[in-house]
Amino acid sequence: MKKYCFGIDVGGTTVKCGLFDVNGEVLDKWEIVTRSENNGVQILPDIAETIAAKISERGLNKEEIAGIGIGVPGPVTEEGDVQKAVNLHWDTIIPLKKQMEELTGLPVMGGNDANVAALGEMWRGGGRGSKNVVMVTLGTGVGGGIIQDGKIVNGANGAGGEIGHIHVTDSLTKPCNCGNTGCLEQLASATGITFLANRKLAEDQRDSLLRNGEVSAKTVFDAVKEGDALALEVAEEFGRYLGVALATVACVTNPEVIVIGGGVSKAGPILLTFIEKYYQKYTFHACRGARFALAELGNDAGIYGAAKMLLP
Amino acid sequence: MKKYCFGIDVGGTTVKCGLFDVNGEVLDKWEIVTRSENNGVQILPDIAETIAAKISERGLNKEEIAGIGIGVPGPVTEEGDVQKAVNLHWDTIIPLKKQMEELTGLPVMGGNDANVAALGEMWRGGGRGSKNVVMVTLGTGVGGGIIQDGKIVNGANGAGGEIGHIHVTDSLTKPCNCGNTGCLEQLASATGITFLANRKLAEDQRDSLLRNGEVSAKTVFDAVKEGDALALEVAEEFGRYLGVALATVACVTNPEVIVIGGGVSKAGPILLTFIEKYYQKYTFHACRGARFALAELGNDAGIYGAAKMLLP
Repeated sequence: MKKYCFGIDVGGTTVKCGLFDVNGEVLDKWEIVTRSENNGVQILPDIAETIAAKISERGLNKEEIAGIGIGVPGPVTEEGDVQKAVNLHWDTIIPLKKQMEELTGLPVMGGNDANVAALGEMWRGGGRGSKNVVMVTLGTGVGGGIIQDGKIVNGANGAGGEIGHIHVTDSLTKPCNCGNTGCLEQLASATGITFLANRKLAEDQRDSLLRNGEVSAKTVFDAVKEGDALALEVAEEFGRYLGVALATVACVTNPEVIVIGGGVSKAGPILLTFIEKYYQKYTFHACRGARFALAELGNDAGIYGAAKMLLP
Repeated sequence: MKKYCFGIDVGGTTVKCGLFDVNGEVLDKWEIVTRSENNGVQILPDIAETIAAKISERGLNKEEIAGIGIGVPGPVTEEGDVQKAVNLHWDTIIPLKKQMEELTGLPVMGGNDANVAALGEMWRGGGRGSKNVVMVTLGTGVGGGIIQDGKIVNGANGAGGEIGHIHVTDSLTKPCNCGNTGCLEQLASATGITFLANRKLAEDQRDSLLRNGEVSAKTVFDAVKEGDALALEVAEEFGRYLGVALATVACVTNPEVIVIGGGVSKAGPILLTFIEKYYQKYTFHACRGARFALAELGNDAGIYGAAKMLLP
């Protein structure tokens, strides 16, 4: 009878760790430093060590532990191999699952961090109660994760859910970090919203609260809340790009819930109105019932989702 | 020990039936008429009857039959309920799985016909050997089916894989059959290719083989093979719309194989070159390895995929 599960979220500077019961209650939460020097060779042994210490500290019986789920910032194959993870300085294939199982003697599953966060939000966050969820994380970039029938859509080589790199316009000339040009990420991330705002400020002479200080995703939505006409147009433009892209995603996976997270989502419910309006206009009729929700787990989504990978 | 499986594909005029062994060899194939009168109330009993007759004719032992898979032209929920199937005159919810299990005493699974055909092509057709497949059917409309880790992506209410209704342009004014405007189906189906060709013939004065007779998807690709410049531009336009849409689908599900079927695919391998060129340009780098293939099972994809639903 399994009672516990570990969820681990490996980032470039810290490794977030959680001990959960099988119902999704977090029993303990802590962090260790990510030692990415020497091609990150110490990262997995460090995780194994902190888990062993936690098992010992709490006097857990290994038989009662379902296993360890690990989210990493890179694509992970079905076999549990990490292809590459730039932020961890892993530049060769790392057999994450195999190596961690050898180090810990527990079942291990690995997943891409954005996909794993989506699973976390499905389990205990904004997508609670549904098994078909799309999650979009609006931060420096646009991350995505697709949950279909309760499982992560990984794809052939772990690149499932890369919705930030959907081609949405031919009008840009500057390339995206991925090398393509006209990606959703260039227009709907925090950076993208700043770009849209600065472009509008340059080509439009109207007065605006945005002319008074720093231009950022936060100041744009703050100005929207003040009724600033120019900021409102920026929000509409952002909402159209993201709404049409999500309408497209829905034609592929027909989600029940679409969860919006990341720093930009701190703008609150008003953010959803701009996205949903265009989603409803452009999606297939059978997909119009999708519910929009804000993410609820913040930076903990990764440890929740990682733990959930091991559970039915 | 299961040895056999039935695959049924219910169309508006005929019901295609297949008896398969569990390895995917077809042992028998036949058709019955679809009796869609009286809201299609006879359709399921007719199927149950023809299966019972086949079991008796071949002296099969029911214990050796894995079950009956049924593809229908409408959305099917995870529970096996058909929401609506206009071509069968089913205008209320039909509990397909429940009713067929009662009628036959065998396990039953139902699926949308386009999704089921994709599963068939994965099992024994153009996607053979892969578990992550996208299939597009280019006929009067554009149908789609997504297979992820060997399973159909159904979505929350059976509308997964409706890629014909991805919004691809703001330049059209005439609505699609679905009610939206600017759907992929309006430009990449047989009808869509005819539309693109007629539009170009009207706005362009050049001579073309297409001015000599009927304009259709077939005559367009016949003219392409003759090196007709105007037809080539139509094919490029078609390829760009479909290639960009498939690049987007790949950012969502990261397929290993993309199978192109339907009447338009009779143009042969040259068709794939126009699609793949734009797919490669616009997709995320990790998705560039996808292989393009022509469908191989033709009208039998549905019975293959239906049978496969019951098998591991």
